[in-house]
Amino acid sequence: MPSIAGATPRIARAGYKDWGRCDLTFVELDEGTTVAGVTTQNICCSSEVELCRQNIKGGQARALVVNAGNSNAFTGRRGLEAVEAITSKVAAHLGCTQGAVFVSSTGVIGVPLPKDKAEAGLDAVFKAEPCSWEDATNTIGTTDTFAKGATASAMIDGVKVNLVGIIKGSGMIAPDMATMLGYIFTDAAVEAPFLQQLLSEANSSSFSCITVDSDTSTSDTVLAFATGKAGNAPLGSYADAGADAFAAALRDICLQLAHLVVRDGEGAQKFIAIHVSGAAHDDSARRVGLAIANSPLVKTAIAGEDANWGRVVMAVGKAGEPADRDLLSISFGSTQVARHGLPVDGYDETPVAAHLKGQEIEIGVDLGLGTGRASVWTCDLTHGYISINADYRS
Amino acid sequence: MPSIAGATPRIARAGYKDWGRCDLTFVELDEGTTVAGVTTQNICCSSEVELCRQNIKGGQARALVVNAGNSNAFTGRRGLEAVEAITSKVAAHLGCTQGAVFVSSTGVIGVPLPKDKAEAGLDAVFKAEPCSWEDATNTIGTTDTFAKGATASAMIDGVKVNLVGIIKGSGMIAPDMATMLGYIFTDAAVEAPFLQQLLSEANSSSFSCITVDSDTSTSDTVLAFATGKAGNAPLGSYADAGADAFAAALRDICLQLAHLVVRDGEGAQKFIAIHVSGAAHDDSARRVGLAIANSPLVKTAIAGEDANWGRVVMAVGKAGEPADRDLLSISFGSTQVARHGLPVDGYDETPVAAHLKGQEIEIGVDLGLGTGRASVWTCDLTHGYISINADYRS
Repeated sequence: MPSIAGATPRIARAGYKDWGRCDLTFVELDEGTTVAGVTTQNICCSSEVELCRQNIKGGQARALVVNAGNSNAFTGRRGLEAVEAITSKVAAHLGCTQGAVFVSSTGVIGVPLPKDKAEAGLDAVFKAEPCSWEDATNTIGTTDTFAKGATASAMIDGVKVNLVGIIKGSGMIAPDMATMLGYIFTDAAVEAPFLQQLLSEANSSSFSCITVDSDTSTSDTVLAFATGKAGNAPLGSYADAGADAFAAALRDICLQLAHLVVRDGEGAQKFIAIHVSGAAHDDSARRVGLAIANSPLVKTAIAGEDANWGRVVMAVGKAGEPADRDLLSISFGSTQVARHGLPVDGYDETPVAAHLKGQEIEIGVDLGLGTGRASVWTCDLTHGYISINADYRS
Repeated sequence: MPSIAGATPRIARAGYKDWGRCDLTFVELDEGTTVAGVTTQNICCSSEVELCRQNIKGGQARALVVNAGNSNAFTGRRGLEAVEAITSKVAAHLGCTQGAVFVSSTGVIGVPLPKDKAEAGLDAVFKAEPCSWEDATNTIGTTDTFAKGATASAMIDGVKVNLVGIIKGSGMIAPDMATMLGYIFTDAAVEAPFLQQLLSEANSSSFSCITVDSDTSTSDTVLAFATGKAGNAPLGSYADAGADAFAAALRDICLQLAHLVVRDGEGAQKFIAIHVSGAAHDDSARRVGLAIANSPLVKTAIAGEDANWGRVVMAVGKAGEPADRDLLSISFGSTQVARHGLPVDGYDETPVAAHLKGQEIEIGVDLGLGTGRASVWTCDLTHGYISINADYRS
């Protein structure tokens, strides 16, 4: 992954867990860096998430701190004190306001983040040499099975800008309590309100369209930082030259990162894309897609390489969205198996069976009602999921 | 189970599947039998469900036919023709209207119910000797691992009335597509509108409060038939003597049946009761309870005998209902593990661990907001669930 001018990652070991590896990531951001973010809808969110929401309003960022091994969620006042100790120490180090320091934590819930370990970890990381994005990606992970990063670039009015994204987790992938934390760094100059608009738009068709197990984490956070070092004229709206190209690059990197999370979903053996069309509107299509993607019966059928389209019908019907059984069509891969509410008589099962034996599964659902469409992504539900989440204590 | 005057079950083999056992249940109901019912909310429901909804409006029943091995869902006009052939044949046999004949089917989806097999099965069942409720319960099942029946009784103004209930399935328990079908028979005299009111009320705190896997079947149906043979003065409202006692008996039998379904949930090893209090209102409590009961991470934690209350916090937070992290209290068994948004320091893990090793798990959640409360029931999520739903084709 390329370096991003104005964004310098470093890692150190705070020792939150008995891991023997680095668990604290610190990214220093040059003055002038703008920030945008989206966070979990979970009401029981962590202090870190509350801090991010607050600081995003300021639009300016000087540092990102990510703690791995302790989510610090549901830890009340003591958890908040640890977060404040971190922002205070970083602000003093960089000579910036606490409002420009962003903190995330991921790991077990209900254990206050130890303030002394965080402070000692920060002392170490301030002195560390800059590291690669790959190192940073490995450090923010918990039980992720591979490091997940993505890159993109765009031309803004003749100036090339780069984007780097790193992410960990998948819904609730860690043994105790994990989170999806994603960070995107770009050297583009983008005003904070427009960056927020672009990130929210990109989020709605990427991170908000993936699910592993329907369980919404208390700590999900995606932050985008724009250092402005590429030298383009700052983007303030879609009317600016290059704004469309940058928006496309941001959507691209968000989708890459979101797909990586699903590919590393707990116990996942197959990557499932669900394309819904003909819905009353786009958001309705997304909700129908998520109802299918969250159905344990659909996910186990795919794990079993079973073209059980009846379960897809069931999931469409329970989604609570406008649908008409007798207009519904369903396909696996490129083969339509049901059309207008009836099984397709004598459809060729050979390509369907071959498609389901693969690792990239496509399910198409046409509701036949309107022009709303959406794609969502998930993984299959396997014995691996049960082993990770139930058996790890035995 | 006791016989119910005015309700006579018979079974026969229609041969819907290669089972070598009876698969067609016919219950003849004497003239004057009233009926009430609740059916699935799934939009993609079967023709049988549509028929039941229509016929319930008439309030009178003379027969119930249950086909096992084929759900006849998503089969369009041909499926409907099979249902009409059944109601027509039964109406001719009994000399009643087709509107008094109730039909359910359960099994694979997307295959039209073979009309000839249904008609031959009816010819056989009309000649069969009456059977026990136990036999009927075994015949309506598909992959249920045990027959599920329940009884209750009540005194109505000095007259003893009996209730018998039979049920099959659990959410979507069969390999292809199953359903929850439940039937309650009573010799009490109850006017149809009041029977419907009582059944709807009982349903809201029983069948609507259980979940195995969050997947709402296309065929769920619960019907209650009151033959009136006990000789009580017909119940028409709560003002009538004995109405409260009958309502309590009906609630009791619905709850017994609902619990049996959860105990036979796919792969279930533990029965989980979730008691939510302090919610904004009762329905909000129910939705919070269902969010916990449907969380794969909560269900796998229980399977792993892990007091992972952080996952309960997560599920409360994602429920979309009023909640305040800092007012939330959680208990396992009789031990409070979190209080007012914080882990209880040094709570005794011994009774918690002992409780989780049992097969009857109680989770208490107090939201600290209001007086709304509800109980919901589910089972744990185990390797058995994956095996049943993914591995059965291999």
